[in-house]
Amino acid sequence: MDFDLKAYVAEKRKIIDEALDRYLPPVGGMEGRVVEAARYSLFAGGKRLRPILSIAAHEACGGSSKALLPVACALEMIHTYSLIHDDLPAMDNDDFRRGKPTNHKVFGEAVAILAGDLLLTYAFELMAEHALEDKSGSVIRAIYVIAKASGLRGMVGGQMIDLVCEGQEVDLATVEYMHARKTGALITASVQVGAILSGTSESQIEQMGRYGRHLGLAFQITDDLLDITGSLQEMGKTPGSDIRKGKRTYPLLVGIEESKRMAKEHVKSALSAISDYDEKADPLRAIAKYVLERSK
Amino acid sequence: MDFDLKAYVAEKRKIIDEALDRYLPPVGGMEGRVVEAARYSLFAGGKRLRPILSIAAHEACGGSSKALLPVACALEMIHTYSLIHDDLPAMDNDDFRRGKPTNHKVFGEAVAILAGDLLLTYAFELMAEHALEDKSGSVIRAIYVIAKASGLRGMVGGQMIDLVCEGQEVDLATVEYMHARKTGALITASVQVGAILSGTSESQIEQMGRYGRHLGLAFQITDDLLDITGSLQEMGKTPGSDIRKGKRTYPLLVGIEESKRMAKEHVKSALSAISDYDEKADPLRAIAKYVLERSK
Repeated sequence: MDFDLKAYVAEKRKIIDEALDRYLPPVGGMEGRVVEAARYSLFAGGKRLRPILSIAAHEACGGSSKALLPVACALEMIHTYSLIHDDLPAMDNDDFRRGKPTNHKVFGEAVAILAGDLLLTYAFELMAEHALEDKSGSVIRAIYVIAKASGLRGMVGGQMIDLVCEGQEVDLATVEYMHARKTGALITASVQVGAILSGTSESQIEQMGRYGRHLGLAFQITDDLLDITGSLQEMGKTPGSDIRKGKRTYPLLVGIEESKRMAKEHVKSALSAISDYDEKADPLRAIAKYVLERSK
Repeated sequence: MDFDLKAYVAEKRKIIDEALDRYLPPVGGMEGRVVEAARYSLFAGGKRLRPILSIAAHEACGGSSKALLPVACALEMIHTYSLIHDDLPAMDNDDFRRGKPTNHKVFGEAVAILAGDLLLTYAFELMAEHALEDKSGSVIRAIYVIAKASGLRGMVGGQMIDLVCEGQEVDLATVEYMHARKTGALITASVQVGAILSGTSESQIEQMGRYGRHLGLAFQITDDLLDITGSLQEMGKTPGSDIRKGKRTYPLLVGIEESKRMAKEHVKSALSAISDYDEKADPLRAIAKYVLERSK
């Protein structure tokens, strides 16, 4: 496969970054500080994985919805809010994220909490605004899928389980369950909403969901592997910090080799879920393969 | 007017409390703690002002939407999330709310932050779920209005201004601007979405918005007055705590008598905004008069 993922990602990132800057521009006045804080984390070098996945899934299904870009940006805002709140002293107490000081380190805890609240709220405002003009009902369905993936059965529930498990002896099933919700749910939702907004069939939406679930798990495993094998530069955070904090990572639970095998298996399942698609799904295929590459 | 507000409020509170309990029931598992925390604040004796206002506005406009109750409950969830986050040590650092220990005092900061995130996220999930079945488009419009009132131009922006102003010498215009966003925006939105869901005319929605804006301001002024004249029992928090914290309240800026005059003026304007309505608007009229009574 000759697909140039690097060029594809660079092109999409530019579109997403420009849209995020347009949707949430700096503002003056006394409330300017919370926007500045939100933008600090929004433009702190994120990979834009979730919006790129939604765009790639949308293209794979032959979609051309005007609501795609705002929904894709909303996904990045929700992801960013969760990072800001997770990094807070009361939560994971992280000082660095993507090689930069975390939000509360720069803006203080109060503004960081509010910046997270702003990003979460604005994500729904942005999507709702675009749903107003949408007669097909697919935007409102996307909002529902994203809200669900962000709540109790998704991100919030996953973070709660993570808090409960910290320092505890937990098994692989619990770790998978936690990850499936904390990070997997929004990754899966990103792929699904790309399909939903294209107006495609239920069976295609289901296939995309399957791709997303396996990709999310593979992504988490390789993230855990990078915590051991990666450098500060590659990761933007101190290597080994998960293990030092008593987090139960895949390599710790099943070993490095078995972790690699599991990641490979999930990528295979992700690819198999979209095997019926033509070359428009090549970006999704390339992303799945890349997830595996980065931990080698 | 012989309208029995006490009976009306008791009846609606029962309906709202039962619905909230149904929408967000206790759950088992490791994530149960965050639901427990969310429910602790959700059932900590709130007045249910916002859901009652949306129901009263809906009835005044002759509506009978199935989405009214979930939207009304979503308003209460968003209000509750904002209280939990505002009470945090990094924010207003309050130990008591409505006479009970604040959320983080009982569940710890991490769970309190997550409980707020859960309530905010779930409010949108609940509304989106009901928008899926709504062909009129009014539910999605309600979501948009509520998201806007909760964000930068509403609650989040208002709280940011409040943080910036604390301990500063600010003028009346700034205090009004802050309150209009921190509490006024969601109160106004509550009344507006009641009207929107009824499918009424734009001019009626505008009138309801005007009622809500004046009611919100009157409510804030009488709240400030209660901080001086009220008891712990009436308020559920220590009297004088706003002033001790250096908050610029209305009585501090313009005196008690002028504050009372202003509250009266806003209630008059609220009543005038809905003067065209028949007796179905009596609950809204009684609520406006009650706001004035409580600070006497």
